[in-house]
Amino acid sequence: MKTKFYGIGVGPGDSDLLTIKAKNIINSVDILLCPIKAVGKDSFAFSIIAPHLENDQVEIINLVYAMHYKRKEIENQWQENAEIIEGYLAAGKSCAFITLGDPSVYSTFMYTLERMDNSKFDLEIVPGITSFCATAAKLGSPLTSWEEGLKIVPVRKNDSAHLRQQIAEEDNLVLMKPSNDATTIVQTLKELNLLNNFKMISKVGSPDENIISDIEQLSQMKIPYLSTIIIKKGGFYD
Amino acid sequence: MKTKFYGIGVGPGDSDLLTIKAKNIINSVDILLCPIKAVGKDSFAFSIIAPHLENDQVEIINLVYAMHYKRKEIENQWQENAEIIEGYLAAGKSCAFITLGDPSVYSTFMYTLERMDNSKFDLEIVPGITSFCATAAKLGSPLTSWEEGLKIVPVRKNDSAHLRQQIAEEDNLVLMKPSNDATTIVQTLKELNLLNNFKMISKVGSPDENIISDIEQLSQMKIPYLSTIIIKKGGFYD
Repeated sequence: MKTKFYGIGVGPGDSDLLTIKAKNIINSVDILLCPIKAVGKDSFAFSIIAPHLENDQVEIINLVYAMHYKRKEIENQWQENAEIIEGYLAAGKSCAFITLGDPSVYSTFMYTLERMDNSKFDLEIVPGITSFCATAAKLGSPLTSWEEGLKIVPVRKNDSAHLRQQIAEEDNLVLMKPSNDATTIVQTLKELNLLNNFKMISKVGSPDENIISDIEQLSQMKIPYLSTIIIKKGGFYD
Repeated sequence: MKTKFYGIGVGPGDSDLLTIKAKNIINSVDILLCPIKAVGKDSFAFSIIAPHLENDQVEIINLVYAMHYKRKEIENQWQENAEIIEGYLAAGKSCAFITLGDPSVYSTFMYTLERMDNSKFDLEIVPGITSFCATAAKLGSPLTSWEEGLKIVPVRKNDSAHLRQQIAEEDNLVLMKPSNDATTIVQTLKELNLLNNFKMISKVGSPDENIISDIEQLSQMKIPYLSTIIIKKGGFYD
């Protein structure tokens, strides 16, 4: 029988947004794999699941994943971590890799999985609550209704043309990774007269949650890494 | 103190994809509001939460929401159900409305909420696992990576130009409500040579789950109401 390897979405920040399935799995594996920014740092994903980790026999192993968007620097980390995990699995240790939000949406888990030989283990991925669904829930507004579409757009560094085009084309947008180019976001919202049509939440559901809907506030702050902006040209519910 | 009104995403079909928060709330309210297709029918959302409903004091109330996409016929139902719920809340009964997937993505809950006076109750929305995240998890592939975008597109009835344009424009797509126009979907996938670039799952995670990745199978079947198609022009993970 092949060893189990789980990819587990833990949601964006509220411990109780963990699924029952995720809770059961993190308490049943040999090893819990937790992404950290750097050696010695705490894992935000681990802090989310910690209140629901009841089995003290589970071994906690941290894996370093730099939390920035410089691809070349972090590709080596993906490869190194893939090999580390394959080592545990080859030794017969079941592993659960916890990842923020949902594994299918820009997760370190998927970048790592892509570099592993999945004929050698029994893979199970557990979906998680996305930051954009949690953000919409907090705002009390739908992301999309009826025949409308929704676009999820990662903000690229120094590519204002791309961002402008995305915002111009769609009525409902989620901007992921807005810390990549805050200046362009602010300028574009102003140009397109969308000052009442955006809201941003950082670390939604966590103790550090911060809701921003004022453009001046947005323009003067340093946008945190884990932030999500929703733009609705049709407006939010009151 | 205002009465609590909860909108609860219960995920797409697997009972254990309920969040811990959702489980706690459904066991603490006075009334659980369950959408049903017609009087006498079972509620699929209720069947999802049923294994985790432990408090037999919770009153179960069904609300009829026709499961089709004919807007005029169902707008009256939204209004009627909004008034029914406002009646319970005015009587001081806390209510949890359970909705498939996530409340912010095409949910009957949001259409109903829009017709309610939210100054009269204390609203809390609990996000849920979307069908598209659960589908991607089951397929073991990301929806979107790195700098790629993702578009969520509801398939419209008799509007093949709209669908063709959406599919042509984006590399990663989720087609919601594909039962609206199966013929156009099949034709467009063939025309754009995407026969190895789509997968569909119906009722993902439920006992009736069905995975389709063969175009001939897709063209010959009646697509079930609760189905999600993922298109990835860059391909799925093996």
